[in-house]
Amino acid sequence: MSVLTGPPSMPSPRSQPTADRALRAIDGLGALLAAVEGGQVGMRVRRPVRDRADLARRYSPGVFEVCEAIAADPTLARRYTMRANTIAVVSDGTTVHGLGNAGPRAALPLMESKAALMSDLGGLNAVPLCLEPGSAPELIDAIARVAPSFGGIVLEDISAPRCFRVEQALQQRLDVPVLHADQHGTAVATLAALRNAARVVGKRFEDLRVVISGAGAAGTATAMLLVAAGLSDVVVGDLRGIVSSCRDDLEEHQHRLAVRTNPRRLTGPLAAAFEDADVFIGASGARLAEARLAAMAPRAIVFALANPRPEVDPTVARRHAEVVATGRSDWPNQVNSALVVPGVFRGALEHEVTRVTTPMLLAAADALAGLIEEPSAEEIVPSLLDERVVPAVAQAVGAVAAQEASQVPQVS
Amino acid sequence: MSVLTGPPSMPSPRSQPTADRALRAIDGLGALLAAVEGGQVGMRVRRPVRDRADLARRYSPGVFEVCEAIAADPTLARRYTMRANTIAVVSDGTTVHGLGNAGPRAALPLMESKAALMSDLGGLNAVPLCLEPGSAPELIDAIARVAPSFGGIVLEDISAPRCFRVEQALQQRLDVPVLHADQHGTAVATLAALRNAARVVGKRFEDLRVVISGAGAAGTATAMLLVAAGLSDVVVGDLRGIVSSCRDDLEEHQHRLAVRTNPRRLTGPLAAAFEDADVFIGASGARLAEARLAAMAPRAIVFALANPRPEVDPTVARRHAEVVATGRSDWPNQVNSALVVPGVFRGALEHEVTRVTTPMLLAAADALAGLIEEPSAEEIVPSLLDERVVPAVAQAVGAVAAQEASQVPQVS
Repeated sequence: MSVLTGPPSMPSPRSQPTADRALRAIDGLGALLAAVEGGQVGMRVRRPVRDRADLARRYSPGVFEVCEAIAADPTLARRYTMRANTIAVVSDGTTVHGLGNAGPRAALPLMESKAALMSDLGGLNAVPLCLEPGSAPELIDAIARVAPSFGGIVLEDISAPRCFRVEQALQQRLDVPVLHADQHGTAVATLAALRNAARVVGKRFEDLRVVISGAGAAGTATAMLLVAAGLSDVVVGDLRGIVSSCRDDLEEHQHRLAVRTNPRRLTGPLAAAFEDADVFIGASGARLAEARLAAMAPRAIVFALANPRPEVDPTVARRHAEVVATGRSDWPNQVNSALVVPGVFRGALEHEVTRVTTPMLLAAADALAGLIEEPSAEEIVPSLLDERVVPAVAQAVGAVAAQEASQVPQVS
Repeated sequence: MSVLTGPPSMPSPRSQPTADRALRAIDGLGALLAAVEGGQVGMRVRRPVRDRADLARRYSPGVFEVCEAIAADPTLARRYTMRANTIAVVSDGTTVHGLGNAGPRAALPLMESKAALMSDLGGLNAVPLCLEPGSAPELIDAIARVAPSFGGIVLEDISAPRCFRVEQALQQRLDVPVLHADQHGTAVATLAALRNAARVVGKRFEDLRVVISGAGAAGTATAMLLVAAGLSDVVVGDLRGIVSSCRDDLEEHQHRLAVRTNPRRLTGPLAAAFEDADVFIGASGARLAEARLAAMAPRAIVFALANPRPEVDPTVARRHAEVVATGRSDWPNQVNSALVVPGVFRGALEHEVTRVTTPMLLAAADALAGLIEEPSAEEIVPSLLDERVVPAVAQAVGAVAAQEASQVPQVS
């Protein structure tokens, strides 16, 4: 029974849950600021200019020959410019986890972190671009206008439902892959983690009964990918209750959810869905009362993925669940889009993929899960620092891309 | 008399002047392409993530503390994000020297070259952003929208007259310095070179009679800066003739020129202005007939700055002028905005300058000229590779900034 056993755990945004206090003991704000002073990323000159001959070759007049060659054949830009290996990491700062609409300047350190990981671990050149907020058409126009410098675009922390429109419009307008990390990255990481978690608790993946809290970018994309991967019982809810076709307040992207999820046609508050659920996935940051977990099936799985504050304290979650994951780096089982995005772009750029497809995302999740030979409660996904992650994901994306390319009828 | 002595030298854009042929002998297109394969710039992670503690500090949860601190006090972004030392190098590719409106993809190698020089020699992080072409308001909106990631914006190769409007609107909207390299960079480099060239030919700087071919970005800004530096006899012309208040076809920015230049009230084709001129400055790429040079005063100075094809072959210019300069790296006396832009931004960022002023530009020119103790016909400006250039220009800009700041009435 999902009855509240006490006042729900709802600390104010300024108070720190257990895990934050652990970090605070190591580093105060001063030390955290010092670690990022001057910025986390900078530019690297791939071949320094040492003498006048270098200048003549790579600046004037030599570079004009290259410009002229690309003007004559624009496809050369893919090989002879930064587009070959550079992606833009774009946010308007409207939904910086835990801070809400913090604005582009406050979002910049986080985008730099993500760009640093993509560059450091992914072998990509990732440029953080934080945008002044605007309407969806204004964001689309601005991003499309700066796109010629980039071989790909990854959107981060753009609030729903605008993020769906922005991503889809850009993918239609641009000839490079566009990914929304909070949708596709989180969904793939979650699917990979769930495959291994199912093995740990000894349940068949296809039989898992899943509750997702949050019907924004991450919740929606995760639900859709889990269904695409073969799950049949996924229930998604937001603050207004379970997403179902009975509701008349659904946003556009939630209609897809209403059609593809909630096979038992539950209605009302999400609490009802926890009864005998095998899996809880937090994709909203909304606090979860312990009573909800108590109602779940035995050998439960809890992914409390909100960053930096999981929906429920992992130590509390462990009382009710056999496998617990968060989005944070200081707990075991970090289920995070950063496991996915660098490898997907690595593979897309290497195989000249212009659009990332659902089969590519499914293959990426399988590859990620496959890196853990013997999953345990403490290890269902590889570490962000595991050097096998990016090549494995890239290889999986590339293999599907090659397959899809061979299926496209060729104009003879 | 400036009478044409033969057919004007007007090779087609595909034919190569002498200097290009010299380079061709060294490097074919294949070698030039190989030198830029994969792009000239990439990202650098300033502090690599080595272990989980690094991840916890600089990714989740640590970085959120930094985001929160900046949300509370946005001025912290200047110190604790990439804004501290990163500028955007922005072009729409509408006036790539020698190629005209080549488009953003063809402009990218050139922007990468410029960004590489700024990063390598200037100690800056310069990010090339090539924009899909659009109207001036569209460009302004796109650039302003991506500005939060950057501590400064340098515009490159945007066609006149749009470039003036774009630069002015951005400078008004943004709280970071905005410079147009083709205007301010070229003007400062030219002024510095002209100060030293005057010493070489033994003429008083203030007495120089100057002809400028080109009334676009570079020509206009150079004329205005030379006048600000104390020259009284500057005549500017374009394909429609000498810029004067008698003309009824002037563009908006040319009205300023008509007021501040052409004191002898010349009219008609620019040819008339060469009579007894001390200095020719090419800022348009329009070919110059040798007969024009023959009409100049003794001990003439010729700056044929169009890139990559100077307005007149330097070997031809040397027959008539004592000092000859170009914008290219493979000839002596490279008068180029790249001598100026990195140092101006270095100084502006270090001194938190939000707007670059004419006194700063004049000081930068003097500092640049001062690096050559004994100017000669072969050395009127330092090399782009001279390590003293950036610090000298930055220091000059900083000194003026400090002076200007002390003159601003403080609100008590």
